[in-house]
Amino acid sequence: MDYSATTPIDPRVLEAMKPYFLKNFGNSMSLHSWGTEAKEALEISREKIASLMNANPKDLIFTGSATESDNMVLKGIVYANKDKGKHIIVSAIEHDCIIETAKWLEKQGIEVTYLPVDKYGIVDLNTLKKAIRKDTVLVSIMHANNEIGTIEPIEEIGKLCREKDVCFHTDATQSYGKIPTDVKRMNIDLLTCNAHKVYGPKGVGALYIREGIEIEPLLHGGGHEFGLRSSTVNVPGIVGFATIAEIQKKEMKSEATRLTKLRDKLINDILKIEDSHLNGHPTKRLPNNANFWFAYIEGESLIVHLNINGVGASTGSACSSDSLEPSHVLLAIGLKPEQAHGSLRLTMGKYTVKEDVDYVIEILPEIVEKLRKISPFKKGYG
Amino acid sequence: MDYSATTPIDPRVLEAMKPYFLKNFGNSMSLHSWGTEAKEALEISREKIASLMNANPKDLIFTGSATESDNMVLKGIVYANKDKGKHIIVSAIEHDCIIETAKWLEKQGIEVTYLPVDKYGIVDLNTLKKAIRKDTVLVSIMHANNEIGTIEPIEEIGKLCREKDVCFHTDATQSYGKIPTDVKRMNIDLLTCNAHKVYGPKGVGALYIREGIEIEPLLHGGGHEFGLRSSTVNVPGIVGFATIAEIQKKEMKSEATRLTKLRDKLINDILKIEDSHLNGHPTKRLPNNANFWFAYIEGESLIVHLNINGVGASTGSACSSDSLEPSHVLLAIGLKPEQAHGSLRLTMGKYTVKEDVDYVIEILPEIVEKLRKISPFKKGYG
Repeated sequence: MDYSATTPIDPRVLEAMKPYFLKNFGNSMSLHSWGTEAKEALEISREKIASLMNANPKDLIFTGSATESDNMVLKGIVYANKDKGKHIIVSAIEHDCIIETAKWLEKQGIEVTYLPVDKYGIVDLNTLKKAIRKDTVLVSIMHANNEIGTIEPIEEIGKLCREKDVCFHTDATQSYGKIPTDVKRMNIDLLTCNAHKVYGPKGVGALYIREGIEIEPLLHGGGHEFGLRSSTVNVPGIVGFATIAEIQKKEMKSEATRLTKLRDKLINDILKIEDSHLNGHPTKRLPNNANFWFAYIEGESLIVHLNINGVGASTGSACSSDSLEPSHVLLAIGLKPEQAHGSLRLTMGKYTVKEDVDYVIEILPEIVEKLRKISPFKKGYG
Repeated sequence: MDYSATTPIDPRVLEAMKPYFLKNFGNSMSLHSWGTEAKEALEISREKIASLMNANPKDLIFTGSATESDNMVLKGIVYANKDKGKHIIVSAIEHDCIIETAKWLEKQGIEVTYLPVDKYGIVDLNTLKKAIRKDTVLVSIMHANNEIGTIEPIEEIGKLCREKDVCFHTDATQSYGKIPTDVKRMNIDLLTCNAHKVYGPKGVGALYIREGIEIEPLLHGGGHEFGLRSSTVNVPGIVGFATIAEIQKKEMKSEATRLTKLRDKLINDILKIEDSHLNGHPTKRLPNNANFWFAYIEGESLIVHLNINGVGASTGSACSSDSLEPSHVLLAIGLKPEQAHGSLRLTMGKYTVKEDVDYVIEILPEIVEKLRKISPFKKGYG
């Protein structure tokens, strides 16, 4: 129940990667046959991954992670457009790798607007329109939120940015390979995605950069990836990423339908628990995501008790689990800190079956009840 | 004959990685059992990789590549020490990922000294001493050069930097796991290494940061790796890296002895070719590296003809093979551009046997002869 943290790789992906670890291990920049072979595998992979977002393959570069892609976008667009302006807009519910990079840029003299969202986590188009200034060089709004699963109106946002002639980036880490993503239809200038959130290997990300967009590299060096991202190309990882892109292109639609049913059952049944609340939008959400807050208890205790019962889940996002701060996403949709602390994220995937959902629905009410009995927040509850 | 470009992974490494792809796939930041298991694998790996450079494990962070580690060092040290100074020193023969990052920093107002080297590629201590200024915040000199294999006097350089109270970084990408590397004995403050140059997976690097060194992150986000490098941790890749570190700790010494013999045979026999010259130092060089220049011919043609005969080799470094510029390393050791263009790098590894070396020695003279006959540089040669 924690597929949004990371996923096991699809066994077909591992099989596809194997030869590139052992036999076809060449450096894609080498001039000999081993290099040419690696280069070919790289370009075929680029086509497959681009195809799943309707992008031209030559507009796609590979990075080491979604975090790297996001860092590159914010810093690279700002540095490349210093003469044009020094203002960027990000939504208040972006992943930490956008928020923290934006904060770092603020220290370097960049002005950042953190765009508010409504109670479902949705960005308002009029608010965005008003926030765009003459010196705005970038708008970055995620496709789907990693905690509450809310899907943003990316197509409309893209259209607005195109009209206003402002560069538009979307972090599609949680949506790529799960729901349709189309850079042309959605008017996207830059798109971040990665492999490990969708049954591919860790350590492989990609960045779509529409032709004509000016951006500076984050990693300088040997000039790989059209001079935009230096570093020996991780061919085995990229082949793995391409394999899952090809698989998801075929299986994504039926899987989304299947997961939506499971998700809705999970939501309906868990909301029967007293003082439980859904976070995020009831329908405009990722097929695999359910997120709740329960009054009077700590999300962390919920995770521990679910884990004792064999269920992996999360509170906030996996990436910020070290932190004691309440989730900035939950605060942005209007929760109080104590409510945000009582959150639970359940995210499903391709190996989740109805029995798993039934089991969670069976054990969760008892765990909530138990924790509320010992809750310091409401003495004598239950 | 191109192991310095990249290496196949050791089959034992793939075996060690497998469970972390499929079963133990957790996110190291998750609070449940899958996360804890990943976190444990991460910390055990950190110990193994640190051990091979005599570092405290808590001083080691993981990155996506040596390029990323090097970029992080130069930018991270400069940004963290803005109030202390704006001058850095790098050797003239550093890898492109240092040179290009230094050039980028120059555009941001940082002063860079590109330290000259002697005809063998060795940095002179007195020259370095004179170059260090009160506002110098970093000295970055590689352990062993990727093209000519020259090993720098790192221990003495480290001692000098420590005396002068200047932060010292070494790029040990070509030396880690091949020759002894000891951050304590060598007075190293920061050290870059990676896995794919030494039979580990691509897409995994590490950076040693001595306790107390102030550095800013390059990747901002979820706060992984002690807050210094955000991004979901690539546990399978890191487990692979650790496995090879453990193997090399045992096998490195005997392998270096074996390769040194093969290298010296290669050098002695190839230098019998008329107008052939060794690049780099005769003895202070990596056990697996031989590098030459041949008058009147193009290195690229050599590569093509060796490849036709089943031998993979390189001219310049793999990373800059797209470029028509002569190698900056060869120019720095005093070669003229036309001489640098006639270079050949032969680098061996654990699967190179005496028969391979004999074969290269057999075919190379004929190839050189043939190319010189059609050379536009010296009509009628031979």
